[in-house]
Amino acid sequence: MPGFIDAHVHIESTMVTPDMFAREIIRHGTTTAVIDPHEMANVLGAEGVSYMVKASQDLPVQILTTIPSSVPAVPGLENAGAEFHAKDIIELFNLPNVVGIAELMDYPGVIQQNPRMAKIVQAGLDYNMLNEGHAPRVSGRDLQAYLAAGVNSDHESRGTEEVLEKLRAGMMIYIRESSASQFAHVVAEAWKEIPHAINIAMCTDDVEPNDMYHNGQMNRVVRRTIEEGVPAPLAIRFATLGGAMRYGLRDQGAISAGYVANFLLVNSLETMDVQDVYVKGKQIVTNGNVTEEIASSVPPLRKNTVNLPDLTEEDFLIQAPINNGQATLTTIEFTDIGTTVQGEVTLEVIDGMITNLPSDYAYVTVINRHGTGQQKKPFVGIIKNTGLTEGAYATTLAHDSHNLVIIGTSAKDILAAARQIEACGGGMCLVIDEEVKALVELPIAGLMSPKPVEELAKEVDYFSKQAIDMGVSVGKRSPAMALSAIALTVIPDIRVSDLGLVDVVGQELIPLFKHTTES
Amino acid sequence: MPGFIDAHVHIESTMVTPDMFAREIIRHGTTTAVIDPHEMANVLGAEGVSYMVKASQDLPVQILTTIPSSVPAVPGLENAGAEFHAKDIIELFNLPNVVGIAELMDYPGVIQQNPRMAKIVQAGLDYNMLNEGHAPRVSGRDLQAYLAAGVNSDHESRGTEEVLEKLRAGMMIYIRESSASQFAHVVAEAWKEIPHAINIAMCTDDVEPNDMYHNGQMNRVVRRTIEEGVPAPLAIRFATLGGAMRYGLRDQGAISAGYVANFLLVNSLETMDVQDVYVKGKQIVTNGNVTEEIASSVPPLRKNTVNLPDLTEEDFLIQAPINNGQATLTTIEFTDIGTTVQGEVTLEVIDGMITNLPSDYAYVTVINRHGTGQQKKPFVGIIKNTGLTEGAYATTLAHDSHNLVIIGTSAKDILAAARQIEACGGGMCLVIDEEVKALVELPIAGLMSPKPVEELAKEVDYFSKQAIDMGVSVGKRSPAMALSAIALTVIPDIRVSDLGLVDVVGQELIPLFKHTTES
Repeated sequence: MPGFIDAHVHIESTMVTPDMFAREIIRHGTTTAVIDPHEMANVLGAEGVSYMVKASQDLPVQILTTIPSSVPAVPGLENAGAEFHAKDIIELFNLPNVVGIAELMDYPGVIQQNPRMAKIVQAGLDYNMLNEGHAPRVSGRDLQAYLAAGVNSDHESRGTEEVLEKLRAGMMIYIRESSASQFAHVVAEAWKEIPHAINIAMCTDDVEPNDMYHNGQMNRVVRRTIEEGVPAPLAIRFATLGGAMRYGLRDQGAISAGYVANFLLVNSLETMDVQDVYVKGKQIVTNGNVTEEIASSVPPLRKNTVNLPDLTEEDFLIQAPINNGQATLTTIEFTDIGTTVQGEVTLEVIDGMITNLPSDYAYVTVINRHGTGQQKKPFVGIIKNTGLTEGAYATTLAHDSHNLVIIGTSAKDILAAARQIEACGGGMCLVIDEEVKALVELPIAGLMSPKPVEELAKEVDYFSKQAIDMGVSVGKRSPAMALSAIALTVIPDIRVSDLGLVDVVGQELIPLFKHTTES
Repeated sequence: MPGFIDAHVHIESTMVTPDMFAREIIRHGTTTAVIDPHEMANVLGAEGVSYMVKASQDLPVQILTTIPSSVPAVPGLENAGAEFHAKDIIELFNLPNVVGIAELMDYPGVIQQNPRMAKIVQAGLDYNMLNEGHAPRVSGRDLQAYLAAGVNSDHESRGTEEVLEKLRAGMMIYIRESSASQFAHVVAEAWKEIPHAINIAMCTDDVEPNDMYHNGQMNRVVRRTIEEGVPAPLAIRFATLGGAMRYGLRDQGAISAGYVANFLLVNSLETMDVQDVYVKGKQIVTNGNVTEEIASSVPPLRKNTVNLPDLTEEDFLIQAPINNGQATLTTIEFTDIGTTVQGEVTLEVIDGMITNLPSDYAYVTVINRHGTGQQKKPFVGIIKNTGLTEGAYATTLAHDSHNLVIIGTSAKDILAAARQIEACGGGMCLVIDEEVKALVELPIAGLMSPKPVEELAKEVDYFSKQAIDMGVSVGKRSPAMALSAIALTVIPDIRVSDLGLVDVVGQELIPLFKHTTES
């Protein structure tokens, strides 16, 4: 079959550099990938995007780039490492192999035509770029407004009716199977309603290194789509020609004279396990193993991006506005299905401090690491149902601003985790009694490692196992990453940023303390 | 439904200027047309193409241009008014709204990679242009070679198996219903075999003014496709989104937010008669009538392009290589189905001349009008089964070199016809006893009139009626044009050019006299 075209993928989620990414995805049959270096942009701005593009050239996998649109994702509610306006994005169009503007996540801004987002979308139209979409649960007039603005793809649909409405509106739908979100069944059901739909492609979006290493990449999306009842030839077409049509890649997506000879063989359509892969007619993968050296001449970016304020143990205790008494605090609560809701808890205040948390609760803090918001001490809140029974969990791979997120049961362990992350230039660690139990070093912008995927996969597997041992119960498929999502301020209902608690639906910061009673 | 996109059309065949063309096709629902100014190129070279492009801008119909590839169509076998090499074509890419290289009719040259054609195709690839195809009956290794060279569309398939092979090879197939060739049924049958094929669009190619006026344009192609069993939504998609996908027109081919508001209403899907047409949201056609003024600011090209040598009656008599006796001559014979085969006839020679033709035979001459091949007297040959019983038929609208073609029963009438055409700067005329019986003046390059289609349609209808009265029996659907095809040196088996008889299959000039017997 033709080489797969991944229509939307974040290399950063795989935690490796573009060449190591290419080396792994080609093993799963992907020969073209359209990347969105959103995470690097949020940490390092234009410098980060430029590095990702340059390090993505001249590899056997063709890597095309969409320029991140939402840097920061939610202006005013958090501090990221950079801020992109239309002019910054236009500047980045000059990089090689740029094909569009990446997922316009600020869909309310696009729909309401706020000046910043309206200008960004217009820049895409003016420069003949694809305006890539991100519109979960957007429908009716809002969907039409989003399309009318000039954004016309989506990979975020949650339901079959939602997909149907979008397909019928002419939107390009990418079937996504990422580590955290699986929607092949949803699109397959929609396809059964309108089997002549041609506006379907596929993507992986965010796949973690261990998940990719063990379970595949685009080949998994194809396999899942077939399992859900789409005939194999069509599923394969969505994974190949679909992406080629979307991006105007006239000589890709098919095995035919006049097309680039990117193709692969699988052992069976049921397992979709990739045996051999050819790029431009040259065999790159043989019997499932990469048989050509794949390495970029661009060295891994060396720059410390973890710039923390001076920290003490006290910074991670919650100071109350009263000296002694009772305080009722707004909390974040994980639900059984991994979403978050707002809760509250009433705790004792002793000497101006809240020091004892009930079981089921932990501290959560987001520490600005970009040097952009360090005028004050880190915000510390309270979170319920993480499962964590001891120690602390810390990560700098925390969408979308990638500040340092730490969840812990004690200030001492939170501080130790922060210091460990600072020392290695970013990454993920688990600490118990000030001792590091697991560490994944991600020195490239606190997001990526220069190691190959197979090594990272082992480290992340070990990390997950340790996290589960420490009680973490959120994110069955990905315990290593699920906790970091607490800082993802675009996902309802309540999240946390370096500025405090965020009401995602209301798009505003909310106070930690609801009320207090001095005793 | 969305406005139709005509994927391949020669304005010259409609005999009107681009604005009058736009004024008529929009009445039939076509809002975008990809033109091939092949005829103007063969008469006037770059100047002709440039005029067509400039006169096609800023009309309610969006006119995109492909640059003629085959000027002349058959080098060495005829003299056209210009000659295009890769460098000439590249130069013309700079004109506005150029999207490709027009039908590469010299498919043997492309397949064999002769240097001229190989360079032309490569120019298309280098400049990201579509390389448009023309590959009747090309299959197997030849088809693969044509595709591999980089040409990947076709509108010339004669049979269902041929269409299937091309669709499966990834070639874009245009369903064509022109005045002379109708192939909706062929593609419809192929579609039934592979109903998920998405590489299908539609075109009209060559439609004469009266045919278009009476019978429609793209709406006829859609209607015919539906009649042949393709579901209406798909037939309409082929006529709209199919062309948009081919040419990368990202905001056309659908009625959807974010798309240009080009759309139309028909009275019924069966008749496909167009009621109202909107372009960019503005109503242009109301109740079947164009309600907005459509006119180009570019005036019709004024330049005499009919440059004939000095002619006398004697020039149209056939001189034999003997004084008296018998001569056997190669003839062109029309078959019942309108194709041509080689024949022979033995005639008496008196005083070095052949003066008496049996009934069923007429003289045929092609007179160079471009000033490029006038070193000798016009070639005169003999043709059988035209049906012409008296007078002469003359035309400068004679694919592909558009020299002056005259078929007549007497040298006197042939000369009179030549002088009439010369006097009006090109066109078509019928003469009996030196009297003009019908005349269609085409002063723009001998191809087009500045008049609107409805007037031309009447003139051509009258011309056809007169031609039938004179006995012309070739071309049931288009008696006005069928005879001119005798100079179309790319269609088997035998044709005639200003240089003599052309063996199309052998691609060589053949002598008129086979043998003679002096008496």
